[in-house]
Amino acid sequence: MEVGFVGVGRMGSAMAANLLKAGHRVKVWDKSVEPLRALQKQGAEIAADARDAFRGDALFSMLPNDDVIRDVFITGRMQPASGRPVHVNMATASMQLANDLAAYHADQGVPYVAATVWGRPDVAAAGKLSIVVAGDPQAIARVQPLLDVIGQKTWHVGDEPSRANLAKIAGNLMVACAIEAIAEAAALVRAHGMSAPEVLDAIITSLFNVPVYRGYGDMIAKQQYEPPGFDLVLGMKDVRLALMAGEEANVPLPFASTLRDSFMDAIANGDAHKDWSAIARVAARRAGLQD
Amino acid sequence: MEVGFVGVGRMGSAMAANLLKAGHRVKVWDKSVEPLRALQKQGAEIAADARDAFRGDALFSMLPNDDVIRDVFITGRMQPASGRPVHVNMATASMQLANDLAAYHADQGVPYVAATVWGRPDVAAAGKLSIVVAGDPQAIARVQPLLDVIGQKTWHVGDEPSRANLAKIAGNLMVACAIEAIAEAAALVRAHGMSAPEVLDAIITSLFNVPVYRGYGDMIAKQQYEPPGFDLVLGMKDVRLALMAGEEANVPLPFASTLRDSFMDAIANGDAHKDWSAIARVAARRAGLQD
Amino acid sequence: MEVGFVGVGRMGSAMAANLLKAGHRVKVWDKSVEPLRALQKQGAEIAADARDAFRGDALFSMLPNDDVIRDVFITGRMQPASGRPVHVNMATASMQLANDLAAYHADQGVPYVAATVWGRPDVAAAGKLSIVVAGDPQAIARVQPLLDVIGQKTWHVGDEPSRANLAKIAGNLMVACAIEAIAEAAALVRAHGMSAPEVLDAIITSLFNVPVYRGYGDMIAKQQYEPPGFDLVLGMKDVRLALMAGEEANVPLPFASTLRDSFMDAIANGDAHKDWSAIARVAARRAGLQD
Amino acid sequence: MEVGFVGVGRMGSAMAANLLKAGHRVKVWDKSVEPLRALQKQGAEIAADARDAFRGDALFSMLPNDDVIRDVFITGRMQPASGRPVHVNMATASMQLANDLAAYHADQGVPYVAATVWGRPDVAAAGKLSIVVAGDPQAIARVQPLLDVIGQKTWHVGDEPSRANLAKIAGNLMVACAIEAIAEAAALVRAHGMSAPEVLDAIITSLFNVPVYRGYGDMIAKQQYEPPGFDLVLGMKDVRLALMAGEEANVPLPFASTLRDSFMDAIANGDAHKDWSAIARVAARRAGLQD
Repeated sequence: MEVGFVGVGRMGSAMAANLLKAGHRVKVWDKSVEPLRALQKQGAEIAADARDAFRGDALFSMLPNDDVIRDVFITGRMQPASGRPVHVNMATASMQLANDLAAYHADQGVPYVAATVWGRPDVAAAGKLSIVVAGDPQAIARVQPLLDVIGQKTWHVGDEPSRANLAKIAGNLMVACAIEAIAEAAALVRAHGMSAPEVLDAIITSLFNVPVYRGYGDMIAKQQYEPPGFDLVLGMKDVRLALMAGEEANVPLPFASTLRDSFMDAIANGDAHKDWSAIARVAARRAGLQD
Repeated sequence: MEVGFVGVGRMGSAMAANLLKAGHRVKVWDKSVEPLRALQKQGAEIAADARDAFRGDALFSMLPNDDVIRDVFITGRMQPASGRPVHVNMATASMQLANDLAAYHADQGVPYVAATVWGRPDVAAAGKLSIVVAGDPQAIARVQPLLDVIGQKTWHVGDEPSRANLAKIAGNLMVACAIEAIAEAAALVRAHGMSAPEVLDAIITSLFNVPVYRGYGDMIAKQQYEPPGFDLVLGMKDVRLALMAGEEANVPLPFASTLRDSFMDAIANGDAHKDWSAIARVAARRAGLQD
Repeated sequence: MEVGFVGVGRMGSAMAANLLKAGHRVKVWDKSVEPLRALQKQGAEIAADARDAFRGDALFSMLPNDDVIRDVFITGRMQPASGRPVHVNMATASMQLANDLAAYHADQGVPYVAATVWGRPDVAAAGKLSIVVAGDPQAIARVQPLLDVIGQKTWHVGDEPSRANLAKIAGNLMVACAIEAIAEAAALVRAHGMSAPEVLDAIITSLFNVPVYRGYGDMIAKQQYEPPGFDLVLGMKDVRLALMAGEEANVPLPFASTLRDSFMDAIANGDAHKDWSAIARVAARRAGLQD
Repeated sequence: MEVGFVGVGRMGSAMAANLLKAGHRVKVWDKSVEPLRALQKQGAEIAADARDAFRGDALFSMLPNDDVIRDVFITGRMQPASGRPVHVNMATASMQLANDLAAYHADQGVPYVAATVWGRPDVAAAGKLSIVVAGDPQAIARVQPLLDVIGQKTWHVGDEPSRANLAKIAGNLMVACAIEAIAEAAALVRAHGMSAPEVLDAIITSLFNVPVYRGYGDMIAKQQYEPPGFDLVLGMKDVRLALMAGEEANVPLPFASTLRDSFMDAIANGDAHKDWSAIARVAARRAGLQD
């Protein structure tokens, strides 16, 4: 199939590379030249601009935040360069933008689905992402073969695209909660003179033996938050998306509220660009521990 | 080896049965007659009283709460009926009691270790519990062969027995945090008209595919909290143990504080004896949802 | 002096009436006709539109929320109809809008000050409001005689108009905190079988004998939240302004976070248009009390 | 009347002095000699021990915490030296101890009332304390003339003495909430570059012009927490009493939970013996401000 891919950071590059390996024709675009060159070597064509990638069967977009997505698609009045490609938006977006995008595409007669993913870049490279998709069933059916290349399983969660975004927001909130839970457990045992690596290893191996806990548990145990896998300021953004989604439907989320305060505390104290698990430094500081 | 086992509820019975199967002589005692009879059929001897089980190589105790343990051991001035058995305390106890027990046994010259476990009764029956042990290394060495029958892995976390208790408290806190995280995610998606079973399945399969999340996720998705696997009032007790341990060392634990409030809310609204995952009803009620 | 007054709800009408009584010429405007007629009887002139009131020495505006203010002034590109009146903005606005307004007026060469007030309509009618003003000192000096009619004391808090808005936001947050504090105290004593009216009377008379506590204490004691003095949804808006101002400067405000959750709980459970002290119903419900 | 007074710290001394001035015979006792001497000069008799003061018409006790009170009265099996004096307990005690004391005195046939007070030492010296009393009406009637000397108003809140204790606990919680509210407002305005003294003066004068806000507002505005008027660790104790009272009746108190965390944070970071308004340093630290 003929596919465009806009936004080829670490996650996007890994997905685009898998589409190439599977024999699809992929036209890529990004503000940054380096990843474009790397994908070119793997057989991708470099688009002239974002719109030039918007043709054929599908356009995948993986852009960093609401502002960029809004600028490119809605404010920029983006339309396909030719044909009737399905826009597959993979970004973590707010419910507000998700609904605005759906309305915009409907207005333009462009098929639109939201397909959010979980998994780190190495999981993406292995084509084993988990995908949650929502949108018009016919549009999803058209891109399903491509999703099958990118991920190992796809969950369909409804006809309104924003539902995939909300599922993503909810999942990310649960990850952030897991980090704070590890951080509080670590502070508690350290304050009693115990070894956090030892205790966290026992707890996580026994009860929570999945990469999310394993990975953040290791960082918190070692008190080592650099280099960041996911910047703390981006974590703050994700927690805000959850709070905003909650506010739209009047859903109190006390854990999310606490997380927001911890993220701001971390940012105010200089850790904006450490890994988001560095909210554990806030938990430690509260207990008077050397963080 | 010759082993006593005091407190044979669902967990204790499963462990005692495994000790019997492994060929050890086990003398059991409990306030309740039924489980004693069941174990007798599997080859156990029924003790005359708790002290009568306290002989040979080791006494395992798995009693329900601080008050009972304190009554039996400290106030009751429990001592071995004969020999020099190691007391292996498997209960979830407060740090205060843990330290008092260590002092009491030291005073009496009785070897004492705390060995806390994670795993549901089916895991216990399979001999696959995770065990965290702390205490005098020689005493631990003596009972290690028995621990190897009960669990699949043992973590040694220090010489002071209370350390095993604190590890248990920290782990249980993390489980409670996971429940509240699931509950908030479920309330969020339900309030937006989505199916909690669908979204939780996607999130948990993708990111948290372990029995803790799987099990509580299912209960919360189905809004089905009976019969309880673990009573909500006992969950409240565990959260209090974490808060008390935090207070002893001045460790603020905001997630634990929030949990305490949710547990009390649930109890005040009639759910004391539902499964502790019924704090999800509190999360739903806060959002005006039919819980 | 020649004064315009845009937005004559209960507060605005009381202030405009005092300006009239003090002998000033006042031209009033509002979307609603009734209060305009009432002020006309007291000597006011009814403006043709908002801009028609924007002339002479000063324009006072007391509009309900950010959206309305932004529409009228910035989007509507409001400019004086004649002369060089000082715009005195009395609304509770976000920091963001406050800064945008300052920039817009500077751009247009129109003198602009923010003057926020505390006090209920009866205090406004008595000319005893407390006023916090910020902006260009010369502009403030020009309108000070008018502020002296409206209020009993004016605090000057700096040259950037947004500072008056922030002071207002901070003060309103403190009022919301007082309400929740009363609500928790009331729930606590009621749950122990005591009379909330009795105990709150003792506490408030002894320690907090000011109208804020007296008034909300009475409503909470009597569990009587209608008619609303200040709608709960507006209270939610004020708490959000505090949280947004906190977010801009990375200031965790845990009481404000808790309040946000209580307000949403109240709204989700049907109390959006009761008095904002009805968050006490949330506190009562959490404790299983008949609210 | 003939009165004993046990526990003559700053508050007790001021009250005892007023009783002397009003012409009553007062026998005083304390662990510390200094205040006894000072009262002796004002006409008091120094008792041989606590029991020696427990005679005549009434014994006032103003002891520092649950442990001391329990030791002296319950464990020490305190009984009147002669006659049938009413024991008037003025301490801030837990509900648990309050109930135990009532039971103990009932058992001994000794009339017992709890009379808690609000007001700083200067208010006590002026005889203007606010008093909340609970207990047997006849016993209260006997000591009312004495209470009228000590305070300016007495509220009767029921026949069970513990009700006066709960009212005191609830009032103290509200004071602690006011401190945190001031602290958050101060952090918010400081982080935006404003002067906390200026803004707090405006807010407090306008809305909260009572000594509680005035006093703590000044300390927080000046960031000056020494010498302490009331030690932060004692504040922590008071918050715990509220949380314990809440727990007994399943009353979630989210503000109290947040306060508990702030107090522990302050203690863990070295401020245990500053004034309890130093929880404002925690609020400032969270926002990355120089506290």
